[in-house]
Amino acid sequence: MIPFGSLVTLVTPKGRRHIKKLEPDGIWHFSEGALDYNYLATLNFGDVAFTNLGKPLRLEEATLYDRLMGLKRQTQIIYPKDIALICLRLGVGEGRVILEAGCGSGALTIALSWFAGKTGKIISHDAREEFTHLARRNLDWAQVGANVELHCRDVRDGFAVKNADAVFLDMREPWLALESALAAVKPGATFAFLLPTTGQMQNLLLTLEKGPFDQIEICELFLRGWKPLADRLRPNDRMTAHTGFLIFCRQAQKSAAWEEAQPAGTRERKQIAAKKERLEENEI
Amino acid sequence: MIPFGSLVTLVTPKGRRHIKKLEPDGIWHFSEGALDYNYLATLNFGDVAFTNLGKPLRLEEATLYDRLMGLKRQTQIIYPKDIALICLRLGVGEGRVILEAGCGSGALTIALSWFAGKTGKIISHDAREEFTHLARRNLDWAQVGANVELHCRDVRDGFAVKNADAVFLDMREPWLALESALAAVKPGATFAFLLPTTGQMQNLLLTLEKGPFDQIEICELFLRGWKPLADRLRPNDRMTAHTGFLIFCRQAQKSAAWEEAQPAGTRERKQIAAKKERLEENEI
Amino acid sequence: MIPFGSLVTLVTPKGRRHIKKLEPDGIWHFSEGALDYNYLATLNFGDVAFTNLGKPLRLEEATLYDRLMGLKRQTQIIYPKDIALICLRLGVGEGRVILEAGCGSGALTIALSWFAGKTGKIISHDAREEFTHLARRNLDWAQVGANVELHCRDVRDGFAVKNADAVFLDMREPWLALESALAAVKPGATFAFLLPTTGQMQNLLLTLEKGPFDQIEICELFLRGWKPLADRLRPNDRMTAHTGFLIFCRQAQKSAAWEEAQPAGTRERKQIAAKKERLEENEI
Amino acid sequence: MIPFGSLVTLVTPKGRRHIKKLEPDGIWHFSEGALDYNYLATLNFGDVAFTNLGKPLRLEEATLYDRLMGLKRQTQIIYPKDIALICLRLGVGEGRVILEAGCGSGALTIALSWFAGKTGKIISHDAREEFTHLARRNLDWAQVGANVELHCRDVRDGFAVKNADAVFLDMREPWLALESALAAVKPGATFAFLLPTTGQMQNLLLTLEKGPFDQIEICELFLRGWKPLADRLRPNDRMTAHTGFLIFCRQAQKSAAWEEAQPAGTRERKQIAAKKERLEENEI
Repeated sequence: MIPFGSLVTLVTPKGRRHIKKLEPDGIWHFSEGALDYNYLATLNFGDVAFTNLGKPLRLEEATLYDRLMGLKRQTQIIYPKDIALICLRLGVGEGRVILEAGCGSGALTIALSWFAGKTGKIISHDAREEFTHLARRNLDWAQVGANVELHCRDVRDGFAVKNADAVFLDMREPWLALESALAAVKPGATFAFLLPTTGQMQNLLLTLEKGPFDQIEICELFLRGWKPLADRLRPNDRMTAHTGFLIFCRQAQKSAAWEEAQPAGTRERKQIAAKKERLEENEI
Repeated sequence: MIPFGSLVTLVTPKGRRHIKKLEPDGIWHFSEGALDYNYLATLNFGDVAFTNLGKPLRLEEATLYDRLMGLKRQTQIIYPKDIALICLRLGVGEGRVILEAGCGSGALTIALSWFAGKTGKIISHDAREEFTHLARRNLDWAQVGANVELHCRDVRDGFAVKNADAVFLDMREPWLALESALAAVKPGATFAFLLPTTGQMQNLLLTLEKGPFDQIEICELFLRGWKPLADRLRPNDRMTAHTGFLIFCRQAQKSAAWEEAQPAGTRERKQIAAKKERLEENEI
Repeated sequence: MIPFGSLVTLVTPKGRRHIKKLEPDGIWHFSEGALDYNYLATLNFGDVAFTNLGKPLRLEEATLYDRLMGLKRQTQIIYPKDIALICLRLGVGEGRVILEAGCGSGALTIALSWFAGKTGKIISHDAREEFTHLARRNLDWAQVGANVELHCRDVRDGFAVKNADAVFLDMREPWLALESALAAVKPGATFAFLLPTTGQMQNLLLTLEKGPFDQIEICELFLRGWKPLADRLRPNDRMTAHTGFLIFCRQAQKSAAWEEAQPAGTRERKQIAAKKERLEENEI
Repeated sequence: MIPFGSLVTLVTPKGRRHIKKLEPDGIWHFSEGALDYNYLATLNFGDVAFTNLGKPLRLEEATLYDRLMGLKRQTQIIYPKDIALICLRLGVGEGRVILEAGCGSGALTIALSWFAGKTGKIISHDAREEFTHLARRNLDWAQVGANVELHCRDVRDGFAVKNADAVFLDMREPWLALESALAAVKPGATFAFLLPTTGQMQNLLLTLEKGPFDQIEICELFLRGWKPLADRLRPNDRMTAHTGFLIFCRQAQKSAAWEEAQPAGTRERKQIAAKKERLEENEI
C-alpha cells in the first residue's frame, strides 16, 4: 500500500524515470497507455504496475536522489556527487544556518532542506525572481522546503540574515559577494564555491588571499560509472569529464604572527620556492 | 566567545589539525607549549591563539568534515567523498530508518547520525563488540549519536529492526547478508554497498541478478585536489586512486513481464549482444 | 607546393576531417562543392583552399595521428593514447621484431610500422582473412607497411616467426595463446595485452602467475580534453571513460630462489597479508 | 648468452631496478654482494643471477621504458605516458625532422631518437650548456642519439635548422619562442607544448589565437595502476594526479574566410555564446 500524496518514480523497462505525485482518482496518460493512481495505491514500492495497454512499469519511491535528478531545470545543473560533498562540507544539519546564493533551479536547496532537519535553516538568495519562484516550486514538488527561506535579492547588497554557520556561493563572480558574505556569517564560518573555469578560480583565489580567509582547498570530483554485468564487468564507455571546481575555505582573523609562522613551516611553499628558483635558472 | 563543551580544531601553521573538547580549566600540553582552555573560550573561531611559548595556532570550529577526518580508526577508512554520496543515495533524514553493517570505526555512522535529524534513526551493526564500542566512543566524541542504535550482531543472522528505508552493507561478503537485509527493509528500499575489489563486485552482482533487485548502478568517485595558488594554479601532484566501488540498487519484486519487456528495449543489452556476436566471430 | 602522392587532411570549418591522397588531375566532390587536386598541389599545408562554390577548407598534412583516427574500421578501435603507450612499452624501433595478434583493422599495426623504421619488423596475425586484408588495405592507405608481414593464422597454433623481441596480444582469450607466444619470443621478451573487462584480466593473471612471467603491471589511461579558450579555460564536458586495461609483463625463468626472496621482501605483499588478517578478523 | 655492450636491468626481489652496461671483466658491487659481468654474459635475459653472497637478481633487457625511467635527472621529469603521446602526435619517424626546446635531462630526446630511425633527425636545444651536456650523456648511456643534434642556444634567438616537420616546446614561457619556431618549421607543422599550470596555458592560448595557428587541442593524461592480483584485483591506492597539460596545434595560414565560416558553424562556439547569454542574464 502506497499512501496518497507520495512522490513515486515510475520506471519504464527502457530505464526512463517519471516522477508523479500519487493523488486520489488521478490518472497518468502517456505513450504506453494510462495508469490509474487508485490502482497504484494498492501496490507496494518495488512492484511492477501495468498500464491499461498491459505495459509494465516499475514503481519506486522517489528518493532524494530521484528528486535531484528529476526536478525542472532552467539553469546549469549541480550534480549529485557535488551536492553531496557540498552538504557534507557545509555541515548542514540540526540547528545550523546555511546561506546560499544563487539558488538557480533549487537542486542544492532541496538537498540542504532535506538534511537540515527541523531546526536547521536554509537562507537562499537569487537576484532574479524567476529563479526564487522556480526554486520554491521545485522545493514544493520535492516535498521539502519548510526550513527554507528564499529571498529575491542581489547578495552583493547584503544577505538576508546574520550569524550563519556556512555559506555556499554559486555565482559568476563570487569574489564580488565576499564582503556581504563575511558580514552575514559567524566567525570561523565555512565558505564553499562552485566555479566552472580556471580563470574564475584565479580571481577568487586572489581575493581570498587578501581577505580574512584560511584553509583554502580546491578539488574536483569525477564519477565513473561501471556496467553492472557480472560476467563482463567493466567501466562505462563515457563519463562526465567536468562539472565544476569546488573551493572550500574558512573565515579567519588576519594575523601577522600566523603568516610569519607559515612560510618557514609549510613544506609546500618551500618546495614551490625551490622549484621556482630551479625554473628561473633553467629558463630558456 | 566559544562556549565550553565545543569541539574545536587547533591548526598549526604547518597544517596539522588537533581536535579538542573545550573543558573549563583544561590545559593542552604539546610540543609547542601549553594552551589554556579558559583563554581559548574568550576567543572566537577563526582567531589565532598563542601557546605559553608564543606559538600561534588557528582556532576553528570542528566541522562534520573535521570530525570524520579526525576520529580514532582501527579499520579501513571510508572517505568523506564516499560518505557524502552514500548519505545522499540512502536519503538519510527526518523520519527515515537506515541500517548499517558493519559500523567499523563509525565514520559513516557519524555522518548518518548528523544528517538523520531528530526523527531519523540509524540502526548500526557489527559482529565484533570491539567495533560497536569504538563506534560509540567516536559518536560520543563527535557529539552526535542520540539517534543511533548500535548492535553487536552478525547480520547474516538477522538485523535488529524491520521496515527500514535503506541499508548500507560494508562487509567482506555482503552477498551473504542479502537475505537478512531483505527481511529487514520496506518494499522498494535502497541498498548500498562499498567493495574494494572487482571479484567481490562480480560475486555481489551474481547474487543481485538472481534476487528481487533492480536498478543496479556501480560507480567510483575520484577526488583530485588542486594547489590553491592564484599565480600557479594546477592540480596536486598525487591523489588517492582507489577507495572502493560503490554499488546501489533497489529491492524490487521479481516480474517476468518486466524482464521480458527489458531485453528488447534496453540499448545496452542490444549493444552487448551485437558486440558479443562480433567478438565471437573475431575470435582468434 | 604539396607533392602529388601526399596524404592530405581537408578540414571543414565545422571540424570534419577528410583524408585524401593527392593524385594528379583528381577532383573531390562533396556536399560543399568540388576541389581540384591540381589546384591543391599549388598550395601549402596550413593554407585554406576554396571549393568551386567558394567554401573554405583547411589543408593539412595527414599526420600519423590523423591516419590512426581516419582509417576504415570494422572492429573495436584501439585509441591513440593506448597505441602510443603500447609502442613505447614494446620498444618498437630499428632492428626490433614485434609480434601482434590479432591485427583487427590495423590501427596499432600502422603505428608499429611507422616507428619500426627500415630495419624493424612487424609480424602481425589474425585468424580471419577479412582482417588481414583490411589491415593491409589500411597500411597501404596510410602509406606505411613495408616492414609489416601479415599472416592469416590462429596464433594458438603458433606464430609465424621465432625470436621476436616483444609481443602484443589483442584477443578475447589471450591466455590461450601464451604458450605459442612463449615459443615465438626471445628470453626476457616484453608481453603486452589489451583487455576490456576485469574478468578477462583475472583469467590472464591466473595464467601469468603460473607461467614463466614476471614484472606484471596493469594500468589504464584516461585522456581528458580541455576547451582551448583562454578566457574561459576549463575541461570538456564529456570524455571517454574506458577503452581497455593494459597489461605488461616480461618472460622470466621460473626460480624458486627468486620466489622465496620475494614474499618477505615486497612491502606490497606484507601489506596485503596484514590487511587480509585484519579483514578476516573484522568479518561480520 | 647476453652480448657484451648490452644495457641490462638487474631487478632485486624488492623491485629495485639497476641498469648496467655489460662490460667484459666488469664487476658490480652493491649491498647484497658482487656480480661478475662475465658470468652474467653466460646467462639469458629473464634468468635469475646470484651474487657471490647467493642473493638472487632478475636479469632483464633494459627496454626503452627502463631507460626512460632510469636516466640521470636534474630537471622536472616528463612521464612515459606523456612522452609516448608526444612522440605519436609529433609523428617522429623515418625522414622526419623534429625540433625540441629545451632538452632538460633528455628523456623525451631519448624516445624521439629511438623512434626517429636512421633517416629521422632530432634537433634539440637548451639555453644552458649544463643540460645539453647532461642530455648527451643520457643519450650515450641509453645507447641512442646518433640521429640527435644538441645545440646550446636560447631558441628565442632562433632554432638551429629550418624546415622542420614538428616542434616540441618544453619551457616556462613557450609563447616567447613561437616566432622563432614558426621560422624554423615547414608550413602546416605540428606544434606541441607541455605546461604545468593553467595560467601558462592561458598565456599560450592568447598568443596562439593571435597567430598563424589552428586546430588547437588540449589534454591531460591520467595513468592509473592496478594491483596485479587475480584474486583481489583492484586499482592501486595512490596515483600521480598531474604531470602537465599537453597542448597541440598546427601552423596555419591566417584566413578571414575561414574565420568567418567558423563561428556560425562550430557548435562549440554557438553553445558558448548561448551559455554566455544565459549566464549574463542569471548574473546575481
